[in-house]
Amino acid sequence: MSRPFIAVDWGTTNRRVYRVESNGDVSATERDGGGVLTTERGDYPAEIAAIRARFGDLPVICAGMVGSNRGWHETPYLDLPAGLAELAARMAWIEPGHTAIVPGVCHRRPGDVMRGEEVQFLGATLAHSIPDNALMCQPGTHNKWARVSSGKLVDFTTAMTGELFALLRAHSLLAAQLTGDIAPDAAFRQGVGEGGKCDLGAALFRVRAAGLLGERDDADAASYTSGLLIGADVAARIETGARVIILADPALGALYLSAIETLGGKALLHDSHTAFLAGITALWKLVQ
Amino acid sequence: MSRPFIAVDWGTTNRRVYRVESNGDVSATERDGGGVLTTERGDYPAEIAAIRARFGDLPVICAGMVGSNRGWHETPYLDLPAGLAELAARMAWIEPGHTAIVPGVCHRRPGDVMRGEEVQFLGATLAHSIPDNALMCQPGTHNKWARVSSGKLVDFTTAMTGELFALLRAHSLLAAQLTGDIAPDAAFRQGVGEGGKCDLGAALFRVRAAGLLGERDDADAASYTSGLLIGADVAARIETGARVIILADPALGALYLSAIETLGGKALLHDSHTAFLAGITALWKLVQ
Repeated sequence: MSRPFIAVDWGTTNRRVYRVESNGDVSATERDGGGVLTTERGDYPAEIAAIRARFGDLPVICAGMVGSNRGWHETPYLDLPAGLAELAARMAWIEPGHTAIVPGVCHRRPGDVMRGEEVQFLGATLAHSIPDNALMCQPGTHNKWARVSSGKLVDFTTAMTGELFALLRAHSLLAAQLTGDIAPDAAFRQGVGEGGKCDLGAALFRVRAAGLLGERDDADAASYTSGLLIGADVAARIETGARVIILADPALGALYLSAIETLGGKALLHDSHTAFLAGITALWKLVQ
Repeated sequence: MSRPFIAVDWGTTNRRVYRVESNGDVSATERDGGGVLTTERGDYPAEIAAIRARFGDLPVICAGMVGSNRGWHETPYLDLPAGLAELAARMAWIEPGHTAIVPGVCHRRPGDVMRGEEVQFLGATLAHSIPDNALMCQPGTHNKWARVSSGKLVDFTTAMTGELFALLRAHSLLAAQLTGDIAPDAAFRQGVGEGGKCDLGAALFRVRAAGLLGERDDADAASYTSGLLIGADVAARIETGARVIILADPALGALYLSAIETLGGKALLHDSHTAFLAGITALWKLVQ
């Protein structure tokens, strides 16, 4: 049994707060757009006080971009291999015993970083039945792929997959074609197949050409283009027969699941919030 | 000997006008930002009149995006294979014998289009000594690769290379790192090597990570990232020992030349304006 505490998954654009009881149950949770991009450095103490006012006067453990140079207090990255014990030992205590930030993890060569996802990857191995050294995937703006072995994060890769799609939809020549819904449909799977052929720049231009030539309904262009980008990402990560654990919400998870299966892999989808909670609760037990 | 005429290379953002004399010499030329994006459809007759007021009351032959649905008058694409005779026969005459637009070319499957570059590719084979079926490259926002055999354009591919770089520099998480100059330097060639490894999404995120971890000076990030994108494009197009003819201005041409040589090919740079002029003059001879 551990004391109740408040866990905050504090990302770039969103923030999710959980009150975790002694038995591990979440008795209250809240999600809002108060990410680090919209929070001034000087406002964090007041934000934390407001969280305590709503969730109770309990210890607060924060993870994510809140620990970056754009956040509240920059915590140095831990090098790989990193497990929960290493994260707990290097937590940055803003107020000793009361308010802390979990450090991020880096892969110094070839160069990669994460902040927040380490809690989910390590937590996933506690919350779910995940084979040692299994390939895990956490889809998002910056999609993370990682492996945990003997309780330590041993390898990871970030791909700018979600951000590339957002750039194309907001600002590119394809923007007007990319207004449709995205689903793991036939157009998506066709995109995945093309995306796996290692020629993304040409495949993207063909989206434009297919519209001009009337070869594809523009209603399918968003699904197809999402498939291209996710397909390129997945193809760089797996070989035929590979097994992947996806940590995501059902909608985004379904896209990666479809892409992995289209490219010959097998995938299993687990809830990312459960993984985060398992990880942050384990960290709390180590430091209280 | 052909009669003098006015050639207009009328693109998306820029426009270049040439007065071509009977002997093929250019006696006057002008480049401005009057591309189709900044020209209303109803304004083209006045624009053409203004061009004649400056360059002489001569026939005007236009090529490029002026013939698109965003331009003056949409001309249907010609299917491959397409040579100068086919382009001349399908020119759209706005005023018979006096003002015309050269049609674009399409590759219906897998789907690709060009407008304007066809004049340069076909013209290059007249202006320069280019082996039959040689791979040619016309770098730009939408980089074009093509082959001309027996005087006909037989194959081409467009890659969104330049546009992807512009999106990243203007709007991405990397924007603040991409303010430096771009040159075919060591950082560029390192990027080319990484770009050729078929994992663009991860390589792009590593630009961010290298900055955060202090592993690369941000002054080199623009060259490196340009190298990544051009490297990915070139690697999809050539094998070791391949020979490529680049049609470009010296600055952009030098980047592609460096990338092609870094990836084991050989490249030769020719001036793209000379190629355009040779092509459009040959078209004028066919229709006057």
